[in-house]
Amino acid sequence: MFIDDAAVLADLASGAAFLGSGGGGDPYYSLLLAEAALARCGRFELVSLADVADDALLAPCGWIGAPTVSVEKLPNGGEAVAGLRRLEEIMGKPIDAVLPIEIGGGNGLAPLIAAAELGIPVVDCDGMGRAFPESQMAIFNIRGISACPSVLTAADGSLSVIETEDNLTHERIARALAVSLGGIAHMVEYPLTGAEAKAHAVPGSVSAAIAIGRAVREARAGGADPFAALGKALVATGLYPHCLTLFDGKIVDLERETRGGFSVGRVTIDGFGDSGRMEIEFQNENLVAARDGRILAMVPDIVTVMDRDTADTITTEKLKYGQRVKVIAAAAPDILRDAHALSFVGPRAFGMGYDFAPVEELNETETA
Amino acid sequence: MFIDDAAVLADLASGAAFLGSGGGGDPYYSLLLAEAALARCGRFELVSLADVADDALLAPCGWIGAPTVSVEKLPNGGEAVAGLRRLEEIMGKPIDAVLPIEIGGGNGLAPLIAAAELGIPVVDCDGMGRAFPESQMAIFNIRGISACPSVLTAADGSLSVIETEDNLTHERIARALAVSLGGIAHMVEYPLTGAEAKAHAVPGSVSAAIAIGRAVREARAGGADPFAALGKALVATGLYPHCLTLFDGKIVDLERETRGGFSVGRVTIDGFGDSGRMEIEFQNENLVAARDGRILAMVPDIVTVMDRDTADTITTEKLKYGQRVKVIAAAAPDILRDAHALSFVGPRAFGMGYDFAPVEELNETETA
Repeated sequence: MFIDDAAVLADLASGAAFLGSGGGGDPYYSLLLAEAALARCGRFELVSLADVADDALLAPCGWIGAPTVSVEKLPNGGEAVAGLRRLEEIMGKPIDAVLPIEIGGGNGLAPLIAAAELGIPVVDCDGMGRAFPESQMAIFNIRGISACPSVLTAADGSLSVIETEDNLTHERIARALAVSLGGIAHMVEYPLTGAEAKAHAVPGSVSAAIAIGRAVREARAGGADPFAALGKALVATGLYPHCLTLFDGKIVDLERETRGGFSVGRVTIDGFGDSGRMEIEFQNENLVAARDGRILAMVPDIVTVMDRDTADTITTEKLKYGQRVKVIAAAAPDILRDAHALSFVGPRAFGMGYDFAPVEELNETETA
Repeated sequence: MFIDDAAVLADLASGAAFLGSGGGGDPYYSLLLAEAALARCGRFELVSLADVADDALLAPCGWIGAPTVSVEKLPNGGEAVAGLRRLEEIMGKPIDAVLPIEIGGGNGLAPLIAAAELGIPVVDCDGMGRAFPESQMAIFNIRGISACPSVLTAADGSLSVIETEDNLTHERIARALAVSLGGIAHMVEYPLTGAEAKAHAVPGSVSAAIAIGRAVREARAGGADPFAALGKALVATGLYPHCLTLFDGKIVDLERETRGGFSVGRVTIDGFGDSGRMEIEFQNENLVAARDGRILAMVPDIVTVMDRDTADTITTEKLKYGQRVKVIAAAAPDILRDAHALSFVGPRAFGMGYDFAPVEELNETETA
């Protein structure tokens, strides 16, 4: 499949923004860059995971750092290509295709640009099925693939190669590098074969994001409820089996700071009418949403704050006092919900003192 | 020249400790490792800078981080060789010889071990003529040589390659890496040719350190004043034209913290009799010494605190309340004292609000 229509890019940006669970970076700049790349390169090629050769060399990539920085510190535009070229040198062979390390936010879109410049396709899959704040939360780490060799490139032209056997050490090094480079850097990581991607990646997530974005756009254009269309499109992807509206209200408080290479904080939303108060904790991504102290959704399930009129996603760095929002939750892909995966991406992996409970169970009384 | 005698290693450790101006790391562990390497490899080869081929590939190396960490977190022993091997891969040719990036402290000794394991010589020169806390304070940066490609290796087996055109960015990245790796890492940096080393390195500083250490040892053994012997040996090297005792007293206060990859603080020494009080500020290395508010020595001149009985150097991480000490200052090598060099290593480069004044002028009334 070729993407040669800017409207499809906008759909991808919109769908990826939702799947980012508030993180992955606002896709606005990635969309502008992708539109410019489309004008330059003519089209982007998206290939199905099934069509990738088993011995193909695939390079997951995306941006690492705090989304709060990404909206102020712009890329030089050459970071991704420089990182991918260096990985090719290290591996001693050309990269056959790239994929988003995470489908969420701007990172769902960013790899297209580098792929078009290198004349290679993007594989329709990703490494998280959403966005997560830390590199070792990728399914590739959960399944034991090495993050290294990994290449970080930054707007100042600097390039760093990381090699370590431990993927948590890799995240720690990469995070420190991103901070030292001004808070954001491009990273190529978890180089893997086509066979490995088939075994472990989240399949179809790029086209899923496009479908989700298109459904919302078409509903808006047709005067239908975009939230209903979003839920229907999510379930139709086969990846996100449940979707529900957790809350509807106005942002009345926001704590947010950029700390240790992350955007960390908490947003408080007062419900309309008598519907109580919701608090959402975030670390780049929204992690846990609770209404009046009762948890209604938690990682790895997706929690996204959206404009209640337009159904545009509001990423965590764009949250503001006074915004009128809906909080939408979606069940994470199944592969993130088994016990082994949850030890990497469940609430305890984020320092919470409780086990994972699926969003559809936590809200059973509401949906019954 | 071959070093095949553990006593010469001990002299080198002692002389380098003095030249470290309190920094470069306590040479105790480096000395133990060098003695073990001597037993394993038979001897170390030290070649004069003049005997190096102009097209030889030379690799300056040493440890980066806080000396306070280096005494608690031990190396795995393979860091230097792993870093040098990787630099060879990047450069596409073998390294002909190594040299200490700084002659001060443990870093004056450490490169011998890697050289012996690789079967290559150490060049009798270094990149600082003393020790400095930051990588871009090397004479190679002052003279416009690139720090990159640079390789950091750590005790956990991780390896990072840095490539950036700006040497201050390189220091910032390397420091962040060292911190993320537990506070200390081995670094190979400023790869250069024999011709470049001849034009820019501080020549003869390894053998100068050996001569200084030997003079102190022989004075002690012969019942002579080791401080007088130290001063005479320093001047005899031709590199350090002045040496004087700044102060004699007891440490009565010490502030020291490990912050941002440095050991930072201040030591206060009360003079014996009526001689006032000395304060020394340090950032890994002793930077400025003032008696009763009057500055008596400042970077890049060397300020070293020594045990007043044994003339053993007390590096900044080994300072303790109650130690009875002499504070010895030595003029830095001339190449660190011109206006261009001072903009990198003079007091203003450390955030002080005044220009450099030579130690021999600041103490004219005392020595007159």
